[in-house]
Amino acid sequence: MYPEVLNNSIASFEKIPGVGKKSAERYALSMLDLTDEDIDTFAKNIKECKKKLTRCSVCGHLTDKEVCSICSDGDRKDNLICVVEDYKSVFMFEKSESYEGKYHVLNGLISPMDGIFPEDINLSTLLDRLKDKENAEVILALKPSIEGETTTLYIKKIFENKKIKVSRLSYGIPMGVDIDYLDSITLDRALLDRKEIS
Amino acid sequence: MYPEVLNNSIASFEKIPGVGKKSAERYALSMLDLTDEDIDTFAKNIKECKKKLTRCSVCGHLTDKEVCSICSDGDRKDNLICVVEDYKSVFMFEKSESYEGKYHVLNGLISPMDGIFPEDINLSTLLDRLKDKENAEVILALKPSIEGETTTLYIKKIFENKKIKVSRLSYGIPMGVDIDYLDSITLDRALLDRKEIS
Repeated sequence: MYPEVLNNSIASFEKIPGVGKKSAERYALSMLDLTDEDIDTFAKNIKECKKKLTRCSVCGHLTDKEVCSICSDGDRKDNLICVVEDYKSVFMFEKSESYEGKYHVLNGLISPMDGIFPEDINLSTLLDRLKDKENAEVILALKPSIEGETTTLYIKKIFENKKIKVSRLSYGIPMGVDIDYLDSITLDRALLDRKEIS
Repeated sequence: MYPEVLNNSIASFEKIPGVGKKSAERYALSMLDLTDEDIDTFAKNIKECKKKLTRCSVCGHLTDKEVCSICSDGDRKDNLICVVEDYKSVFMFEKSESYEGKYHVLNGLISPMDGIFPEDINLSTLLDRLKDKENAEVILALKPSIEGETTTLYIKKIFENKKIKVSRLSYGIPMGVDIDYLDSITLDRALLDRKEIS
């Protein structure tokens, strides 16, 4: 139905995770309304984005510098490190604007089934980043899946007898969600992790 | 919050009509999961799409050839022409797969307020395309706005006393929509255009 060049453009949009056939069609057609200059800039930007972005040498987060802006920010606590699976989690935390520490991005989770072992993820430097700091704490913010739990347990072991506090995010009822519509696993967890009202 | 190159990529996605800030962020981040090759192809495709697409010299539809695939399709009736505002309408009709005639794409609507007069839209060749055909019919499928109605009336005048049937799409209740939730203008129109059950 569409001219070939338009089909090619649609196919490219469909490659973006989360973009389905219908959206890809709409975007490819909408693209025709942009100026030639905008399209050239678009093409340049997406290429440069992939080419110039690299991993921060300290924490493993996405950056276009050697050390990312979070790691080089002197105002942030460096005795508090939040361990996350990937850079997307970092952006989520940063959006909430309440976290004052730094991050450690694993870029993966331990999953022996898939052949991913501790040495395959960004873990080797984590202990070193905290061991000489006073009141050091590592917060584990990994997803509650088998891989997430495995990784959490493994990291907990690394810090055993190291005088570094290890915590994890609390599980429970999401804010603004009606208990009636909650899944039972979350509800069980919220009951188990209940906090005393002081 | 994001590295500069990522911000640039997000800004480009936001330029696509219909893509908001949040989707642009998601797409720009998702783009990083694609291979370098996919991204190069993406950049190439969107550029070529805009560069190679042109208007069909017969009907004004979007095409990468001199004459579009619909106009050069010998199986389609050439005594039946559906007049539409833009190429998006053509794709909508083609999706329904029930129309056997051809199209005439105005690429605009008459709007004296905006300085758009009949000679500014693709109208000059419309009459010629039908005048020697037997049982010719022109179907006006323009939107029910002031500009759409003005253009419909103007085209109706062109065909006056030309032994060419002029029709327009029926207005009425959209299929699958509950009458309770219908706007009153549509309901009035559906009442006015009521059809006898035979």
